[in-house]
Amino acid sequence: MNHHPNDLLNKVHQLVIIGSGPAGHTAAIYASRANLNPILFEGFMAGGVAAGGQLTTTTDVENFPGFPDGISGPNLMDLFRRQSLRFGTSIFTETISKADFSSRPFRLWREGEEKSPPIQSKAVIIATGATAKTLPLLEGIKEYWQKGISACAVCDGALPLFRDKELAVIGGGDTAAEEASFLTKYASKVYVIHRRDQLRASHAMQNRILHHPKIQMIWDSEVVCAFGKESLLQGIKIHNKKNNQETQLSVHGLFFAIGHKPNTDPFLGQIELDQDGYIICSPNTSRTSIEGVFAAGDVQDKKYRQAITSAGSGCMAALDAEHWLSNSGE
Amino acid sequence: MNHHPNDLLNKVHQLVIIGSGPAGHTAAIYASRANLNPILFEGFMAGGVAAGGQLTTTTDVENFPGFPDGISGPNLMDLFRRQSLRFGTSIFTETISKADFSSRPFRLWREGEEKSPPIQSKAVIIATGATAKTLPLLEGIKEYWQKGISACAVCDGALPLFRDKELAVIGGGDTAAEEASFLTKYASKVYVIHRRDQLRASHAMQNRILHHPKIQMIWDSEVVCAFGKESLLQGIKIHNKKNNQETQLSVHGLFFAIGHKPNTDPFLGQIELDQDGYIICSPNTSRTSIEGVFAAGDVQDKKYRQAITSAGSGCMAALDAEHWLSNSGE
Repeated sequence: MNHHPNDLLNKVHQLVIIGSGPAGHTAAIYASRANLNPILFEGFMAGGVAAGGQLTTTTDVENFPGFPDGISGPNLMDLFRRQSLRFGTSIFTETISKADFSSRPFRLWREGEEKSPPIQSKAVIIATGATAKTLPLLEGIKEYWQKGISACAVCDGALPLFRDKELAVIGGGDTAAEEASFLTKYASKVYVIHRRDQLRASHAMQNRILHHPKIQMIWDSEVVCAFGKESLLQGIKIHNKKNNQETQLSVHGLFFAIGHKPNTDPFLGQIELDQDGYIICSPNTSRTSIEGVFAAGDVQDKKYRQAITSAGSGCMAALDAEHWLSNSGE
Repeated sequence: MNHHPNDLLNKVHQLVIIGSGPAGHTAAIYASRANLNPILFEGFMAGGVAAGGQLTTTTDVENFPGFPDGISGPNLMDLFRRQSLRFGTSIFTETISKADFSSRPFRLWREGEEKSPPIQSKAVIIATGATAKTLPLLEGIKEYWQKGISACAVCDGALPLFRDKELAVIGGGDTAAEEASFLTKYASKVYVIHRRDQLRASHAMQNRILHHPKIQMIWDSEVVCAFGKESLLQGIKIHNKKNNQETQLSVHGLFFAIGHKPNTDPFLGQIELDQDGYIICSPNTSRTSIEGVFAAGDVQDKKYRQAITSAGSGCMAALDAEHWLSNSGE
């Protein structure tokens, strides 16, 4: 059943789902099949990303099981969305910007409507994801995004355009070391570009990349611009901050590994977060520090961060929410 | 790359995956894309189920995200299998019956070949699943399996054939209470048939079903046979053990909720299991009590047990295995 927009404010909902990536939509599919009539806020450029989440910025998804020939990120998200709608999820293209979990029913406000009456719900699933940090002002980043530039080596590293090519990773922490190490499986050479003169990565990870025959460190340096032709990345320019020199690298891939930012701003002070801002869930569940509030996907996972793990955790959140609503007599 | 069968015994493999449900194949997709050249044993009627696992016994899968029009279980498994093969997984249609994790490389034996040399591998992912307990000798069970008879209310309860119909659940524990409660969303009435005169379910769960207007308990009773017409279940016969009477119920659905058996027999004594025989993993990971052995899917999950959660955990196992193999210098 689809709600008329007026219904949105006039009743206490069973379940509101915030987010529209694999976690949000899988939660919606399960919750709507369980007759919870979920409301899903897919967001409007929430976290700087279109409704559908990070997958919408991915051209080829080869590792989501069930699609042996691959599928584009936007097409996969469209399938998820159709499946949520099919079982009765009501989808609103708005961003939730403010939450109050201090009393029940929980209260949520939409961006631009923070002074208006809130949406009320007995249970909430937060699936707002995380946003990969990039250097948005870097010249060429938009032009070559997903045409050689990526924020996920595990997702994209195996694509044919990177095979036996020289690639570059930006970053100096464990993620950068992991991604560089992962990329050596395909690349002829991997540069790790770090703005300092030593890595933040753990000792073990440092060993792994500092002595790898395919990996070359480029210290004290920042990428200045990315360039290419026929809409494929062909190289980058680098600025060394110590000697002030500019050099050029003919790389066909550029991977950002400078971290992610979980999209938890609306929930600050409402719910327990870890030191990096990720939602803390009880082990092997989707339960947060507030009973009745559940979390799924990258907003609570800084380790695996895959579409399929995210979808799995969305299912868990819906089953946990259904179970909680039944047992709390709601 | 596909291995010649002779290669199987002549080298130490990086990774062997045991099992061919959503967990096994998702692990294979990720591991093969990470160039680990995984060997996957899909089993030959392992746990009494065809290669592909429990989904192969399911007609309509409506809740696997990405398939808004639904897909049959066997077709979905076929897609998973094609995707594993595409990236270079070597699949063998044999069952692993024996394992030795006490020394490295780990050793595995195939059913019927327990006296032959073992398969050797640095890392192992166990994704052998669990098998729903049923009453295999019950008259009519094979005939109406997935034509009214099911072992998963959450998976199948929302299907049109059960809407506004009278249904029956067999069992007396928490799962039976959960499934009966879940089915009241769709059914006109739900019978819970239990062979004893009281439930094993928790107090909270008992309250939920004993006072539910749509649920009727049938105590001290066992199902004798299932019958129907035009290959759809139409009813069951019940025998009351106390008064020795037989009665007939016109139900269109019969759900087994008498538990699952995890397929861990080959690993008894090799790896830490819980009291029900499920593999114990470190929280939020796929790591078992043996370093280098990972577990995914229903063999380590007695709570969510969905295709999508299983697939997510298969991805985790592949990433954990890849990470461990890299870090252990293997």
